[in-house]
Amino acid sequence: MKLSEIGELPLIETICKRFFKRSKDILVGIGDDAAVIKYHNKNLLMTTDMMVEGIHFDLSFMTPYQLGFKLVSVNVSDIYAMGGAPEYLLLNIAMNKNTEHSFILAFFDGVHVAMKLYGVSLIGGDLSSTKNEMFIAASLTGNTDRPVKRSGAHPGDKIYVTGNLGDSACGLEALKKIKKTVPIENTPSLTLPPRGGGMGGGDNSELQIIISKLSKLCLTWNTVKPLLKRHLMPIARNPKDFVKDATAMIDISDGLFIDLSRLCNESRVGAKLYATHIPISRQMQKVSSVLKIDPFKLAVSGGEDYELLFTASRNSKLETLALASRLGRQNSKLKITCIGEITKKERIVIDKRGKKSDLRAEGYQHFGIKR
Amino acid sequence: MKLSEIGELPLIETICKRFFKRSKDILVGIGDDAAVIKYHNKNLLMTTDMMVEGIHFDLSFMTPYQLGFKLVSVNVSDIYAMGGAPEYLLLNIAMNKNTEHSFILAFFDGVHVAMKLYGVSLIGGDLSSTKNEMFIAASLTGNTDRPVKRSGAHPGDKIYVTGNLGDSACGLEALKKIKKTVPIENTPSLTLPPRGGGMGGGDNSELQIIISKLSKLCLTWNTVKPLLKRHLMPIARNPKDFVKDATAMIDISDGLFIDLSRLCNESRVGAKLYATHIPISRQMQKVSSVLKIDPFKLAVSGGEDYELLFTASRNSKLETLALASRLGRQNSKLKITCIGEITKKERIVIDKRGKKSDLRAEGYQHFGIKR
Repeated sequence: MKLSEIGELPLIETICKRFFKRSKDILVGIGDDAAVIKYHNKNLLMTTDMMVEGIHFDLSFMTPYQLGFKLVSVNVSDIYAMGGAPEYLLLNIAMNKNTEHSFILAFFDGVHVAMKLYGVSLIGGDLSSTKNEMFIAASLTGNTDRPVKRSGAHPGDKIYVTGNLGDSACGLEALKKIKKTVPIENTPSLTLPPRGGGMGGGDNSELQIIISKLSKLCLTWNTVKPLLKRHLMPIARNPKDFVKDATAMIDISDGLFIDLSRLCNESRVGAKLYATHIPISRQMQKVSSVLKIDPFKLAVSGGEDYELLFTASRNSKLETLALASRLGRQNSKLKITCIGEITKKERIVIDKRGKKSDLRAEGYQHFGIKR
Repeated sequence: MKLSEIGELPLIETICKRFFKRSKDILVGIGDDAAVIKYHNKNLLMTTDMMVEGIHFDLSFMTPYQLGFKLVSVNVSDIYAMGGAPEYLLLNIAMNKNTEHSFILAFFDGVHVAMKLYGVSLIGGDLSSTKNEMFIAASLTGNTDRPVKRSGAHPGDKIYVTGNLGDSACGLEALKKIKKTVPIENTPSLTLPPRGGGMGGGDNSELQIIISKLSKLCLTWNTVKPLLKRHLMPIARNPKDFVKDATAMIDISDGLFIDLSRLCNESRVGAKLYATHIPISRQMQKVSSVLKIDPFKLAVSGGEDYELLFTASRNSKLETLALASRLGRQNSKLKITCIGEITKKERIVIDKRGKKSDLRAEGYQHFGIKR
């Protein structure tokens, strides 16, 4: 039987079952955002995430700078999702020998800027050639006093998400219309001193072409830019403001529904979501309507959000934080929204008319299993 | 300029210079076999190594079981080369969706057997699809009280290697004649309980085909088998018998000359090698002569030896160990040979007639730079 007939999730389940091990040293093994090792009375976190050309990225839509930045971000997101602080980074890079030297320098510019942003140090790696596609992976360590696992949610806990959902997936749809790389890296907080001939920039004429393409779709640059940014250069969400209250946490990489199902499976609980509470940005509403895509579908199963999904008990500080966030009165910039609550078993979504439907684990799966 | 015009080594040098960092926590950063992090008064080792289809392996020559085993071994070899004990493993696996499920199960059989052999635990990983080639990587941690770096060699130190050199490269040449996978995994110490329909085995008829192919070349199975084994399922060398005396160490993955040059560069010293001392197995002599390949070239620049190359001061316990090894009087099974000594600056090889030639950093480099 081929992997395309089995799908990613059952395969992961088989591997987890076979290699699952919890010992006095391995506090969390396979099956969470990161492993947790008791390392001489401290909690060492370890995670790894890869990006494959043609699957995770398309170099006609993405600059090497953006790629380097995103590779670090997606790994940091896993450490943050355990309530940890990222520390040490290893890289694997496999490229075709016809790759331009300037490409790899720009890639490392992106890696470097992300490392500075998150306070991470590069300590090693491996370089190889490939016959075809580019392949990159990173492994990242972190530390935390109290790891927040997927398995800590209890019935009655409220369910929260950071940011807006679906922005990244909608950004990807917009990119498919723009059909070229977009110079969004020159954001003040994200720049390095200029390097001669660097590819980190992108000039104005390039931007003019994109703006004129967008205007034919009746879209403005300011509307599309935040979505592109969330897709091309996501910034991982640091949970420091609420981590103390989180009972369970996961980062949304494959889509809200699939990742919430994972959290529920590990916690052996159910969930009740309110569709109208799911945070969707004004920009995503606008762009998805122009592109004739259901914004709700993008928000719940689009994938690559890299937002944090977490639970906290009723009456925690989180309720005040989420309220402040809704009223725009929050000091920190991170938006937090309560989207439902943990149930004993039932897994449902309630729509705006109060109608219930099943919460199904829909989202991205490798090996193209039918959904 | 393309990477093929630059080559792997200058590229690595650029990256090392840019990201090199030594702090009170990072004892060894980029540029050794593994990084060393001071982690709450202990030394945490971290390394990563990848294997790309079409570059590092060819699935018409290698079973998935062998591949899984080798991936773990090459990473363990890096931890051993720092004088460490391997601990926790992360895996990245990217495969085509048309891969057979039995293939991935057999791959994990090989991983599992290697994990048991080295006492390693799998704690996480990442799975992806690919459009074409398979790509696998592992990251591995370890620990050691005293890391043995590449940079500790001093003029006057003796230079040692474990095992024989060139067996793996010669095994690969033999494989190119056999032109198919070879069932060598059924070695008593390396088996798991049989799994229904497992691919770990290989039946007798398959072996008969190979034996008959070899006999046409006037070669026997017993002569070729150890070379194939060293190439397909290398066992990493544990330096426990001599690690206390080692002043510098590296594992030979790209070839003796290139890896000795790395050690010399880091230690800022030279080396004098005696060509006649370089350990070449009887089997490799025989097979290389039949295949009309220079055995010396295979031994010094063949690559993928996964033997340890290390230095120790004169009058260390190593001299006795190496002598015992030469006389076949050593209790441990690991062969150790003194092949030369560290000099202040001069880097030369002395041939059997006493003629000197330059020691050149020849060996495998990615991106196909001319040598």
